[in-house]
Formats: sequence, structure tokens, C-alpha cells
Amino acid sequence: MALSEFELIRRYFQQPGLMADPLLHPGVALGIGDDCALLDFGAATRLAISLDVLVAGVHFPAAADPSLIGERALAVALSDLAAMGATPLGFTLGLTLPVAEASWLAGFSAGLAAAAQRYGCPLLGGDTTAGPLQVAVQVHGTLPAGKALRRDGARVGDEVWVSGQLGAAALALEVLAGRLSPEGEAAAALLSAYYRPVPQLALGRALLDLAHAAQDVSDGLLADLGHIARASGVGMELQLAAVPVSPAVLAVATAGRASELALGGGDDYQLVFTAPSAAHQPIEALGARLQVLLTCIGRVVAGADVEVLDAGGRRVPVAVSGYQHFT
Amino acid sequence: MALSEFELIRRYFQQPGLMADPLLHPGVALGIGDDCALLDFGAATRLAISLDVLVAGVHFPAAADPSLIGERALAVALSDLAAMGATPLGFTLGLTLPVAEASWLAGFSAGLAAAAQRYGCPLLGGDTTAGPLQVAVQVHGTLPAGKALRRDGARVGDEVWVSGQLGAAALALEVLAGRLSPEGEAAAALLSAYYRPVPQLALGRALLDLAHAAQDVSDGLLADLGHIARASGVGMELQLAAVPVSPAVLAVATAGRASELALGGGDDYQLVFTAPSAAHQPIEALGARLQVLLTCIGRVVAGADVEVLDAGGRRVPVAVSGYQHFT
Repeated sequence: MALSEFELIRRYFQQPGLMADPLLHPGVALGIGDDCALLDFGAATRLAISLDVLVAGVHFPAAADPSLIGERALAVALSDLAAMGATPLGFTLGLTLPVAEASWLAGFSAGLAAAAQRYGCPLLGGDTTAGPLQVAVQVHGTLPAGKALRRDGARVGDEVWVSGQLGAAALALEVLAGRLSPEGEAAAALLSAYYRPVPQLALGRALLDLAHAAQDVSDGLLADLGHIARASGVGMELQLAAVPVSPAVLAVATAGRASELALGGGDDYQLVFTAPSAAHQPIEALGARLQVLLTCIGRVVAGADVEVLDAGGRRVPVAVSGYQHFT
Repeated sequence: MALSEFELIRRYFQQPGLMADPLLHPGVALGIGDDCALLDFGAATRLAISLDVLVAGVHFPAAADPSLIGERALAVALSDLAAMGATPLGFTLGLTLPVAEASWLAGFSAGLAAAAQRYGCPLLGGDTTAGPLQVAVQVHGTLPAGKALRRDGARVGDEVWVSGQLGAAALALEVLAGRLSPEGEAAAALLSAYYRPVPQLALGRALLDLAHAAQDVSDGLLADLGHIARASGVGMELQLAAVPVSPAVLAVATAGRASELALGGGDDYQLVFTAPSAAHQPIEALGARLQVLLTCIGRVVAGADVEVLDAGGRRVPVAVSGYQHFT
């Protein structure tokens, strides 16, 4: 049986007996189905939480530098807080490892500590057990009362924006798999994009007052925009030429492959968001202030599909989809 | 290199760069080292969080009934909330599984839902990925402002109490391993103790106003009392004859083995706690009201060791220790 992760969650976990009943659990402002769940405590505090599990051999190479595994695990989880506009408070760690090797643990904890300090997100507790190498990280962040960047707020007429440049992390997977061996500098840029993603926390916070909907690019641009489109009940039209592709990808891949990677590759951990056109100039000013590239790549339309258009306005058939487990 | 889980955590994770700095993170009321971490939001709300990871083949048999795996995973995690006196709010789930098999998922989610409903703890979100079977559960609970049952509050002169009867879950592991094949009724009682532990949530809540320190019995009675003793800077003297042993254990094991299991076996998920002698009668009344067996098994003394005494007051040498990973 082949089930996508999303079908699996919908079928087995989004059932009445498991989900929060709004009457019984009024503090659960948002449950399954977004980057974070939201918990409200009284009128003043909103907590955003997100749990990510990274499996050796699936989400990272088992033989990777343990410092990079630690740094990346926390950064990737923090990207979910960024996508909701939340400010990091702390994280819990579930570490499963086959043997307690001193050098591995020293490297892993040093990488975690580097990310914890950089993003102001200390370790709160957790569980360490023997077993196949996996890293579970739950991040906790705070939000102003009543606020959050959610997937379900996009409106027809919104502009669609993305931060940064896309495709490098996905191409790095081919380097890691040994299918691609670019020159030193290009390889370093690709691997850095994969191992050292930068959660867009300051951007997410600033977008609380500007954007209608947001999410991080983890499954791939089209797949992640598809999540927003479905949750919001809208469609989107993207301009292929506007989608910002990583120079490291353009240096190595053909133009067609570069587009595929930018549209379909995951692990970029940039933010995609929709905002009213009245916010266009404030968003450009925000990008300049934060020194983050922010590109308007399309618009929200009536419908249900995310379509990619060429310079002539013709629909480009795109044979990419987000990363799917279990298929 | 052989490192206990506790040495590993102390050496690699309780480092200044990773832990919360009280000046920078005033909302972190309690970090690494207790059953839960505590987060304070303003003056009114305290959140208790705990992450548990269960690995197939280590914490449960991979071929176990998926419904029991789901039910037990949530119950075990909720026991950490009980140990702090917290009331469940909801849980997140990190599920890693090799194949998305419909019957397994239906059973697992039904078991989770049964526990979620029984304990008022809905699923808030999570992550489902492909990989070796593991179940990570983070529970979130609320506490009255400023309150919690912690490990570090035991005082010399306190009485030491335990809920329920001990040893059955540990003996069930021998049944699961095929080393023991008791008669039907005894086997059912043992397996039920292992698969269907009952988190002592009502007891924990009530103890907020009665106990000085508490923890759940997960590693084994002596090991878990050792955690309280170390955190509180005290010793303990236990009366061997007072320790309540499960009738299912007494029916199958010799008296000596039964004591070993009650003192050293883990997975009971009862509560151990210390309380002033002035609380003795209120605690007995509480047990009657909740219909939970509460037994005074010893007292807190000056020192650092948890000692077991026989009826004549002589020290009983006990060669048991809690479950240790990586050794």
C-alpha cells in the first residue's frame, strides 16, 4: 500500500477521537495541519510548538559530521517557528543512537549548542536512548496573543513571495549520494545550503503584520505553496522566470534541471508567503532592512491549482512534486 | 566506552552553551534533570513538558499489538506529567515506521485515541517519517502558577511513599522475551501491567499540596528514589517488608526474585514521593478517596544513599540498578 504522508495523517490521525475538541480544549488554537500547533494561555500568551524527526539514512547521511547533524536538526525545526512568526523559547531533544561514542556526542552537542546560541533557543530537556540513529527536536516559541502566520489565510489577489534562492539543498542530495561531483567551491556552496540552512526567524516575526499566509519551503516550493493553496481554498499562478534559483545550482545544472530543483526540491527552509499588494513596498523595505532577498513570484487566484507560467503567460507543465515518504 | 544515560546527559547536554541561562530565559523555571521541564508564562500559567522516545526492540517488541504500542506510548509519557502534578493539555507525536501498513496504523491510532480520550490529552501535531519503528511522544500539561512536584524537594524527616504495587511490568519483560511462561491469568496480569500502565494523574495533582518531592517509577524503585535523593541532597531508608509487590509477581516468582523486581524493575509508572509526617493521615485519606493504594515504605534521612532495611533494621544488600542504556 502506498500512502503519502499527508494521506496517512488525514486518514489515521485527523480523527475525532484524537484531535482536540474546541469545546473541551479551548486553549488549543490550532492543531494538526500547519507548521506549528498553537496553544493559548489566558489572553496574553500564545505558544507555537513543532516536532520534527530526522532519521539517519533518510533525512541525513548516517556518516555525516555529527556537529552538522546537530546544528541542522535544530535549524530545521526552528524553521517551523519562523514560518508561524514565532520567537524561539527553547527545544527538547529525543536522541536515539546505536552507541554512546564520545567524539560523536561531543561533535553533535557542539553543533546543537552553536545553533542554540545563535538562535536563542536553549535545550529544555529530552530523552536519550539506544537504537537506530534518529534525532527528534521539538521547538517551542512565543507569539503575540491572537497572532500567527498560518497556511489558511491566503486571499485571491494576494502576491506570492519567497525569501532567498532555491534548489541548492536539493542538488546537494545528489552530491551526498555520489551522483554529482562538482568543483570545490560549487560543492561547498551546495553542501552548506543543505547542512546549514538558516531559519528565517526575523523575517517571520516581521511578516506577522504584513503577510496573510506563510509556510517554510521544506517539501519543495510547489508542494509547500500547494499546502497554502489547499488550506486557503485558493489557486496560484507563478512566473517561472521570477523564481529565484541558487547561483550554485545554475553553476552546475542545466537551466531546465535548475528550474526543476527550484520548484520541486525541498530542504531550502526559506519562507513562502502571500500578502496583499498594498504590502508590496513595505515587504521590499523589510527585505532591505533584514538583508534578505525577497522576491514576488506570482499571485493568488481563484481556483485550486498552483500553476507555473512562462514569459508568454503559457502554462508550463511541471513534473515535480514534494518529497513523499512511503511511496 | 560505556556511559550511562545520566552520565551522557550530564557530560554532553548539561553544558552552559546548551542549557537555558536564567537571565536570558527567565520563563524557563526548570530545565534538564526532572520528569518535565517547566515554562512560566506571565504570572498565571505554568507549562510542564516531557519528551519520551520508545524504540522498537528496546522499549517494546516490534511485533506487539499496534493498539497497545499506541496506548502505552501516550500513557508512559503522561506518567511524567503525573510525576510533576500537571494536568494534560495535549501531545505531539513523532512516528517513524518502515512501511505505511493500513492495519498497523489503524490499530496504533486507535490505541492512541483510546488513551487520548481516557486522559483528556488530544493530539496537537507531529511528524510522520519512514525509518526504523520508533514512537516519540511529547506531552504538555498545565500547573497552577509557581507549583510543581519536583525531585529536589525531599527533606530529612519526610516519609517515603509509593503508589500501587511493583514488579509486574519488569517480570512481563521476561514473558515477552520467552524466558517465562506462566499460567494464563498470571501472564495476562503481567502483560497488562507492562502494556497498559495507568499514569497517576489525579494522584499527582492532589499531591501538589501534600508532597515535598515526587517522580514516577520508570527506571526502578531504587533508581528513581536515587534520583530524588541526589537532587535533594538526602539519603533514604526503606523497609523491605513494606514495599508493595504485585500479586502477579508473588504468584510466579520466588520471594527473593519478587523483591528484586519490586526494588529494581522499571516500567511500573507508579509515583514515589516524600511528604512530611504531618501529611500522613491526609495522604491515607487521599488514597481512599482516589482508590489508589498508597504505602509508606520508609523515610528520608541525612546522607546520600538509598538503603533497604530488613525487619530487624539490618541493611539488606541489594544488587539491583535501574535500566541503563549504553552499558
